[in-house]
Amino acid sequence: MLPFKVNRAKIIEISQGLSAHIHKTPVLTSTQLDSLTKANLFFKCESFQKTGSFKIRGATYNGLVLPPEKKAKGFVTHSSGNHGQAVAYVADNLGLKSYIIMPKTSSKVKIAAVQNYNGKVIFCEPNAKARAETCQSVQLKTQANFIHPYDHQNTILGQSSVGTELLKQVPNLDCIITPVGGGGLISGVALSSHFLAPKTQIYGAEPLQANDTFLSFQAGEIVPFKKPPRSVADGLLAPVGKAPFKFIKRFVKDILVVNEKEILKAMFLIWQTLKIIVEPSCATVLAAVQANRSIFENKRVGLILTGGNVDFGQVKRYKLISEGLA
Amino acid sequence: MLPFKVNRAKIIEISQGLSAHIHKTPVLTSTQLDSLTKANLFFKCESFQKTGSFKIRGATYNGLVLPPEKKAKGFVTHSSGNHGQAVAYVADNLGLKSYIIMPKTSSKVKIAAVQNYNGKVIFCEPNAKARAETCQSVQLKTQANFIHPYDHQNTILGQSSVGTELLKQVPNLDCIITPVGGGGLISGVALSSHFLAPKTQIYGAEPLQANDTFLSFQAGEIVPFKKPPRSVADGLLAPVGKAPFKFIKRFVKDILVVNEKEILKAMFLIWQTLKIIVEPSCATVLAAVQANRSIFENKRVGLILTGGNVDFGQVKRYKLISEGLA
Repeated sequence: MLPFKVNRAKIIEISQGLSAHIHKTPVLTSTQLDSLTKANLFFKCESFQKTGSFKIRGATYNGLVLPPEKKAKGFVTHSSGNHGQAVAYVADNLGLKSYIIMPKTSSKVKIAAVQNYNGKVIFCEPNAKARAETCQSVQLKTQANFIHPYDHQNTILGQSSVGTELLKQVPNLDCIITPVGGGGLISGVALSSHFLAPKTQIYGAEPLQANDTFLSFQAGEIVPFKKPPRSVADGLLAPVGKAPFKFIKRFVKDILVVNEKEILKAMFLIWQTLKIIVEPSCATVLAAVQANRSIFENKRVGLILTGGNVDFGQVKRYKLISEGLA
Repeated sequence: MLPFKVNRAKIIEISQGLSAHIHKTPVLTSTQLDSLTKANLFFKCESFQKTGSFKIRGATYNGLVLPPEKKAKGFVTHSSGNHGQAVAYVADNLGLKSYIIMPKTSSKVKIAAVQNYNGKVIFCEPNAKARAETCQSVQLKTQANFIHPYDHQNTILGQSSVGTELLKQVPNLDCIITPVGGGGLISGVALSSHFLAPKTQIYGAEPLQANDTFLSFQAGEIVPFKKPPRSVADGLLAPVGKAPFKFIKRFVKDILVVNEKEILKAMFLIWQTLKIIVEPSCATVLAAVQANRSIFENKRVGLILTGGNVDFGQVKRYKLISEGLA
């Protein structure tokens, strides 16, 4: 059973409703990458999305379904990355306050990005307990609405619109592959595909160094991280959520893991051939296609490029890792 | 007087004829960059063009106008950069040979890019005399057709199609700003604007460290480089050509110079906000807008982003220069 009720009409309606608030992002193709992978690749470029990532979809949908008097209290969330920026942007756009809980170790670039959208940054110790406690205390004090980055019905429904849009832009996809962190995106895409293109198979791509979803998928139940994961794919470090894992178990064909070098090699390949900026997290999808030729050869493959927020101060390190030198 | 005869119908016909062979590149806008510059900016993204730069336009047009028996001998050119790649690509596509003269100091990335399109790379000493002599001797031996990177009617006419396309995509531009190296692009764009949008003013952006066009424009006659120029904008190091300079004198409103730091700051700003890869050379145009607020404020400005071929091994150095640390 799914964690919540939803049907085909609802999935279509959500995407239509969101379209007034977000960009319809382009789908890029490359003969060079097709011939390299022997597949037909369709890159859904959420890196061009408002705030630079797909996270705006879930955040916006959360805002749309809140009753006005609740909404007026503003938003609160914990995220050091794209979700924090998205929530701050949506709140700012509605003239509301947002409170973004970030670990005090967050990079200046990420803090500035949230502040750029007038989000109030509240620092906490860099661990899950401190994060949850800080978030709860801010919520109590301000009555702001908590927007979960992935483990909530409305976030998942919002993210489903990426799938709905892609399936409309590119018919007859054999499969879609998305990065996996907390699992909100893959759940949403699996949902839209379930209703709109049930033959399309859904794959997840996960960093080897943060492979809790892979392990959970193998075990059939959530396997928590033994210690906090580290990866260049810093958008994919969240543990898989309870609601997302139900979708993953039911709808996802497989979770494919890729190592740091594969991820960054794929990232530079995308920069070089598609001439677009994507962040390491979303390069996992091309890396997974390259590491699993037999699955994707001669297939029409949709790849979700989730975001384009890169700290360019890291590029030298990324280059060294991609060349196996760091 | 212009160096060759051309009229409005011809300019339109050239763009139409080329459209079957090249990409119609997108025009991007950014509310963030608009509010930063207080102008309306329209970025014509030739970085998404085949081979990663506008140079394919001139190369293709040169090929189109050659009689078949001459064309069969293949192409020769000297270029360590985008023009070399473009000529190799066009020849390869026609099943013809290409000979690309490159200084023996060229980077591996650039050599590989030409070889990737089956161009035969012929090395020469890194100076203008050796380059011209090698080119001439290859031409004599092979009877291949020399495709000049900028100082030739057909190259200029080919490049005019960037302007024709942009003026169709974005009406009522107050001005267009293009990078200036040898001057082929700005001449072509000035031509198309002269016939199709005569009120649109044309500006050139040039690196301070390779400012021969600026000095020539001030003097009213070509002022040669005193020593070989060096700049991160390595696509703009050629001396301004004789034919292009006639167009520049007649049609260009001004040449604006920008320093290395300004160029690279603008490049990262484009990477960060537009989420696209552009090379340092074309960041000169945004840098020039930022350095000359009074000219562009409240104007509708077309900016030609000429190419996206970046050596990512240089990014760390670029970052340091952009921050004034190198």
